[in-house]
Amino acid sequence: MKQGAGLSVWVRLIKAYNMILPQARRSVEPGFTLPRFDVMVQLYRRPEGMTFVELSRNLLVSAGNLTGIVKRLEHDRLVARETNESDRRSARLRLTPEGRRRIAAAVPRHARDIERLFASVPRGEVEQLRRLLGSLTHALDRRTDTGGDTR
Amino acid sequence: MKQGAGLSVWVRLIKAYNMILPQARRSVEPGFTLPRFDVMVQLYRRPEGMTFVELSRNLLVSAGNLTGIVKRLEHDRLVARETNESDRRSARLRLTPEGRRRIAAAVPRHARDIERLFASVPRGEVEQLRRLLGSLTHALDRRTDTGGDTR
Repeated sequence: MKQGAGLSVWVRLIKAYNMILPQARRSVEPGFTLPRFDVMVQLYRRPEGMTFVELSRNLLVSAGNLTGIVKRLEHDRLVARETNESDRRSARLRLTPEGRRRIAAAVPRHARDIERLFASVPRGEVEQLRRLLGSLTHALDRRTDTGGDTR
Repeated sequence: MKQGAGLSVWVRLIKAYNMILPQARRSVEPGFTLPRFDVMVQLYRRPEGMTFVELSRNLLVSAGNLTGIVKRLEHDRLVARETNESDRRSARLRLTPEGRRRIAAAVPRHARDIERLFASVPRGEVEQLRRLLGSLTHALDRRTDTGGDTR
């Protein structure tokens, strides 16, 4: 069974993903799952707050139950919701000061752990991979925009 | 927050993975989940059969419950188990003729669907991605072999 280059990229992409994921999980603060971490990172980047729709559009890790994750973060006083009485869908989510403090400490550690994984890969290759994966996601994006496929 | 190239590769890898996965799922035969498909593809490549240990080592999609998946495939008469009475762990799994027939039809269709996703990416870039992702998984493999990390 001769394998095409595209299928081969997909197979290797799955392999790389599965190899990095457990280490990424391990590197988030204890008690933070990767989806929780992801939600907080997105909010950290947007001090003006985000609606649920904006948030779900920007998440990396598919958050099966975003409402549940946000509820727990609110319960832990890491995220606060500001409700607009006239339009409930436009409720904005923001990190609390405690949420900001926690994620500001967690992000650099996570970044360092991930960088360390790539330490044995030549810098030039990492840079090329970055560029090519960017070009791939762009191509896939255009495809879903015009191809009528739902995502 | 300036992002290192390694972290940036990881973020784009997650994006590409999440964009391709739903299409890969959709492209396996109705009634086949991706882990089921994965198990059958592995067995299809090894007519001499595989033990559970060999199988779990070769799977791409993490099969949360490999025993359950294999049981269902046995129930559907797509996989047969050949038990060695003196050593139960060495039980070999093989596709039944019906299993071979089904997967032989499903594999080319799946491959074609995945190739189609990459159609808008220049051939040279797909080839480079293939090579660089291969080099990345090798580097990550060496890391886990020697770094004392469990996978």
